[in-house]
Amino acid sequence: MYDCIIIGSGPGGLSAALNLKTYRKDFIWFGSKDLSDKVMKAEKIANYPGLPEMSGTKFLERLQAHMENAGLEITEKTVTNVVYSGGRFMVLADNEFYEAKTVILAIGVVAAKLMEGEERLLGKGVSYCATCDGMLYAGKRIAVVCNAPKFEHEVEYLADLASEVLYYPTFESRVERENVTISRDVPTKIQGEKRVTSVTLQSKTTVPVDGVFCLRNAIVPTKLIPGIRVEDAHVVVDRQMATNLPGCFAAGDCTGRPYQFAKAVGEGNVAAHGVISFLAT
Amino acid sequence: MYDCIIIGSGPGGLSAALNLKTYRKDFIWFGSKDLSDKVMKAEKIANYPGLPEMSGTKFLERLQAHMENAGLEITEKTVTNVVYSGGRFMVLADNEFYEAKTVILAIGVVAAKLMEGEERLLGKGVSYCATCDGMLYAGKRIAVVCNAPKFEHEVEYLADLASEVLYYPTFESRVERENVTISRDVPTKIQGEKRVTSVTLQSKTTVPVDGVFCLRNAIVPTKLIPGIRVEDAHVVVDRQMATNLPGCFAAGDCTGRPYQFAKAVGEGNVAAHGVISFLAT
Repeated sequence: MYDCIIIGSGPGGLSAALNLKTYRKDFIWFGSKDLSDKVMKAEKIANYPGLPEMSGTKFLERLQAHMENAGLEITEKTVTNVVYSGGRFMVLADNEFYEAKTVILAIGVVAAKLMEGEERLLGKGVSYCATCDGMLYAGKRIAVVCNAPKFEHEVEYLADLASEVLYYPTFESRVERENVTISRDVPTKIQGEKRVTSVTLQSKTTVPVDGVFCLRNAIVPTKLIPGIRVEDAHVVVDRQMATNLPGCFAAGDCTGRPYQFAKAVGEGNVAAHGVISFLAT
Repeated sequence: MYDCIIIGSGPGGLSAALNLKTYRKDFIWFGSKDLSDKVMKAEKIANYPGLPEMSGTKFLERLQAHMENAGLEITEKTVTNVVYSGGRFMVLADNEFYEAKTVILAIGVVAAKLMEGEERLLGKGVSYCATCDGMLYAGKRIAVVCNAPKFEHEVEYLADLASEVLYYPTFESRVERENVTISRDVPTKIQGEKRVTSVTLQSKTTVPVDGVFCLRNAIVPTKLIPGIRVEDAHVVVDRQMATNLPGCFAAGDCTGRPYQFAKAVGEGNVAAHGVISFLAT
């Protein structure tokens, strides 16, 4: 059982990881080796003390260099569920279970609105994880919505399995596959009773599909970890970054505005210290 | 009337200033051009994301470079009083009044315990500001306690005025004056009924003095700004870094543990955004 599991590799997650490493805690850190699309896309960062005006990519290079310097390792798996039970956390990442005494949520914030029907049909044809559920759609026709280039390898993985992929990225895609149709249209509604049957687009077209994969930078907290207290889609935390679940802390954009790197970094630090205190009691 | 007055030039104050500058707010920033003794004295900082392992002096250089790059200016005055009245703040700095709609307290934390009698005799021979009260002790004998080299110019200023200065620094002093006696002893108690009459040292010696100057890195919040809500000597803030006084925000060590640069930076950012929202309403 780990002392802590950190979910998310943005500035908040990195800040937490640096502190847990210093305190020699036994932790695993789930995220992306690219750390954060949001950082990468930032045009100019002028208000992070110590690093005067730099581009998002430059800032990201600094964070990555620090991570390597500190000997931190990221486990590139997608966390889809966290269950709090019996005073410990069971974390499901790419269909494998990991157990920990504490958890730090640095999961970012879902900017886009969910599609109509998405919540209702989650687990019934709607999936947030290609690695977890891709096999279920072998030889089938699926829709994939995606808001970050870092998930394109998951799209390719799905294309290896599915017979046909209707792909709706929010950016310039690099995927080139015979069975992948890229569209700039935007899925707005998912239909189906017991299971997904079709998806309706902004253009009012409805296309029959067997499943819908939503590959997004962030996940709604209440979907990730049932029982967590939220307010306006943000995780409610106290000044120690503790959530309502004992041992569960949060940091960064998922806890609310302002959505700022400096805030995320500060909160990641405090959350890590919260974990350290919690483990000591 | 300023939009905001920032008190304190540690990482929290700098972070706040960077953000108010970006938003083109009309603010004045009180502190030291050396920014922060606490940063300077840090042996190694390993957990500030983006700047792998560096000494406090190196980190300080980074902060100063950023400050200059951003065109920020520090006003080197000591704030001794903040009065909230009629929806605005009157800030007393080196005996001059400054008026503002909002205030950000980034005043650090008082690590040392106050001396016995210090609180009772404040304004009755006990002073926190050489520039403000030095003239009152022309030709007299005073004691000076000091915990940061940056205040040594104030000690020299006092030596110009007083006939005799009993000086108790907590560090290696560079002051060389005929009328200054440097001692490693530690004042623990101040005596006097209506006014200061003497000070007692750890060595049990009691020396008669007319006044006691306490030149410290931080000031007790309730002494600085009457009516502010504190808990265990820390300013009580909500998640927006707002205090109980409308328009008064706080950031950094003064709001509580962990005493970390990353936390201070994050809170300075959030406090500035709180100020910006407050001014907009």
